[in-house]
Amino acid sequence: MDEFMQAAIEEARLGLQEGGIPIGSVLVHQGRIIGRGHNRRVQQGSAILHGEMDALENAGRQPARIYRESVIYTTLSPCSMCTGAILLYGIPKVIIGENQTFMGGEALLRSQGVELQVLQDETCIELMRHFIASKPELWNEDIGE
Amino acid sequence: MDEFMQAAIEEARLGLQEGGIPIGSVLVHQGRIIGRGHNRRVQQGSAILHGEMDALENAGRQPARIYRESVIYTTLSPCSMCTGAILLYGIPKVIIGENQTFMGGEALLRSQGVELQVLQDETCIELMRHFIASKPELWNEDIGE
Repeated sequence: MDEFMQAAIEEARLGLQEGGIPIGSVLVHQGRIIGRGHNRRVQQGSAILHGEMDALENAGRQPARIYRESVIYTTLSPCSMCTGAILLYGIPKVIIGENQTFMGGEALLRSQGVELQVLQDETCIELMRHFIASKPELWNEDIGE
Repeated sequence: MDEFMQAAIEEARLGLQEGGIPIGSVLVHQGRIIGRGHNRRVQQGSAILHGEMDALENAGRQPARIYRESVIYTTLSPCSMCTGAILLYGIPKVIIGENQTFMGGEALLRSQGVELQVLQDETCIELMRHFIASKPELWNEDIGE
């Protein structure tokens, strides 16, 4: 397992332990994690802190150059909002844990030249399958359904 | 002037007074503001709190139904990230102060059936023109350029 996806999974598990939605993300610049985070809907009553958004926020203000040399790892296929954030900052590569339980904006990302790798990692799939089965209403709220 | 766009402009001016980027937004549900906000890049060192995102965050957790009955007002054409957030939550209508100084994801929004109105409001245009001329590097950072 890639160390950065492992870190994203650790973030997802941390979110689950806090009673939250188990999705984690890390932003990696030239081999170093510069932001890490997880979904905070439950923990902070947040409508915008998805895993990727939390990682971007925790990376702080960065010049465009840094994002364009970075890779973002996320345990789940990025939703429309997170897709838009990736496009805003011109992050050229996204490593996705899985897209079996939710398919996000992958087609839009690819159409804009973003490189994607989808791992279909069993740990990521199991985390979401179990979560969706146990708290379907919370999951629907998080994806606007 | 529509009272809700006026409220969004008040938010933009508040941001400017705080030394920030003058973009404001309000989320309106059935004729009532349920969230209002402005860009917080400078004030909170935030990479994700654009005006629209701040308004969504300040509206708190809402069920899908509420967003689908809402209108979002923003003083400036929404960037890719804010566009994605609008699509995530299925907000059906966006009232935009202006798109002369920056053109965001309007084509994508329209392609997904979102109704847009662009006011080309002189106050909104002047706020951004003056800001961009005075702090071009800060503006570029905010739009990932």
